[in-house]
Amino acid sequence: MKKKISLRVIRRISFYYEALLKLNLPETNYISSKKLEEVTGVSCNQVRQDFFYLGISIGKQKKGYLVKKLFRELRRILSIDHGARVIIIGAGRIGQALSNYKLFKDRNITVTALFDIKPGLVGTEIGKPGQKKPILHVDQLDAYLNENPDIHIALLTVPEEAAQETLDRLIAHGIKGVVNFAPKILKVPRESKDVQLINDCIGTSLYKIVYQLYNKK
Amino acid sequence: MKKKISLRVIRRISFYYEALLKLNLPETNYISSKKLEEVTGVSCNQVRQDFFYLGISIGKQKKGYLVKKLFRELRRILSIDHGARVIIIGAGRIGQALSNYKLFKDRNITVTALFDIKPGLVGTEIGKPGQKKPILHVDQLDAYLNENPDIHIALLTVPEEAAQETLDRLIAHGIKGVVNFAPKILKVPRESKDVQLINDCIGTSLYKIVYQLYNKK
Repeated sequence: MKKKISLRVIRRISFYYEALLKLNLPETNYISSKKLEEVTGVSCNQVRQDFFYLGISIGKQKKGYLVKKLFRELRRILSIDHGARVIIIGAGRIGQALSNYKLFKDRNITVTALFDIKPGLVGTEIGKPGQKKPILHVDQLDAYLNENPDIHIALLTVPEEAAQETLDRLIAHGIKGVVNFAPKILKVPRESKDVQLINDCIGTSLYKIVYQLYNKK
Repeated sequence: MKKKISLRVIRRISFYYEALLKLNLPETNYISSKKLEEVTGVSCNQVRQDFFYLGISIGKQKKGYLVKKLFRELRRILSIDHGARVIIIGAGRIGQALSNYKLFKDRNITVTALFDIKPGLVGTEIGKPGQKKPILHVDQLDAYLNENPDIHIALLTVPEEAAQETLDRLIAHGIKGVVNFAPKILKVPRESKDVQLINDCIGTSLYKIVYQLYNKK
């Protein structure tokens, strides 16, 4: 899979995957693009286009997509079998909400620890019994990543003042992928071109809705 | 302002606005695109391009943008003076995190109430003292919107199974703008073309990072 995949396509793929999980069909069954439209809201035309792009064919009998094959391909694209262990920097409300996000579990993404600097937070644990995650001090980051060399991804939910500095620190510690939720455009240093960064900002959609509603007339 | 504005532009505008708030400069001062780059991470070229597009000029003296004028324009675009009162449907972790999101306050967006169906949640309040928000039952939605005719926007953080049905209900109650955070593409009914909907999904950026990291070789 060398194809470039946009955020929109990745989002739809994760919807298809979740639909398959939910429907829990026998592997030898077939599923139609119509059925996938019903569960995911993605139009059947778009479903067919996506699967064509991903090289997933409908098979000779035109019955739809073989569940087994579809599942295997979607799992591969989403790296479900590989899984991902990630850390969260910033244990405020958004960080805590993300640390228990059900959909991450469906995609075999595990939040292993949160990091913060607040005395009241550091040293505590959050999450349900059996799924507790420690909140560690940011100064423990280096040691933690040395002990957990399989962790390559971090979610950044720190205040924007601290965001670039924290990103630089994560990269220095070997982190290879970061989603930044702080309202600031961060940059990967020139010498670290292999690091993947996405600047996300949770409120943007709402600001756009406000703009659209109040600038119509 | 009749121009089409993309999510990216809206995001940058809200960054510029926040930078002005933070810098707290006298209104008669000028601010350069370089300074805005420093605070927001948006390149100075992009800053100039955005302001040109928005019709904000640099003035004759080439000293930069007059703070007073910039502030006024950004406030207008983001409807800061108008403000927005919004409700959140779904009082789970994400809903609760959004209900106390500091950046919404900076943009004069107030979450007035949350709605849920869980007996343990309904009837309680969340938030800091003085900023408490009630969690009401979804069945109270109609009455609540009748009492608060200035509320036109809702954030949807319900499970995907309930999302389309809830959206339809919101529209029937007169809601005009919705951000859907559930992992399902929702659709506005044909007869409600004036309703603005954005399908957002918080985890998508992370799935893309996972994809990019594990599909490189």
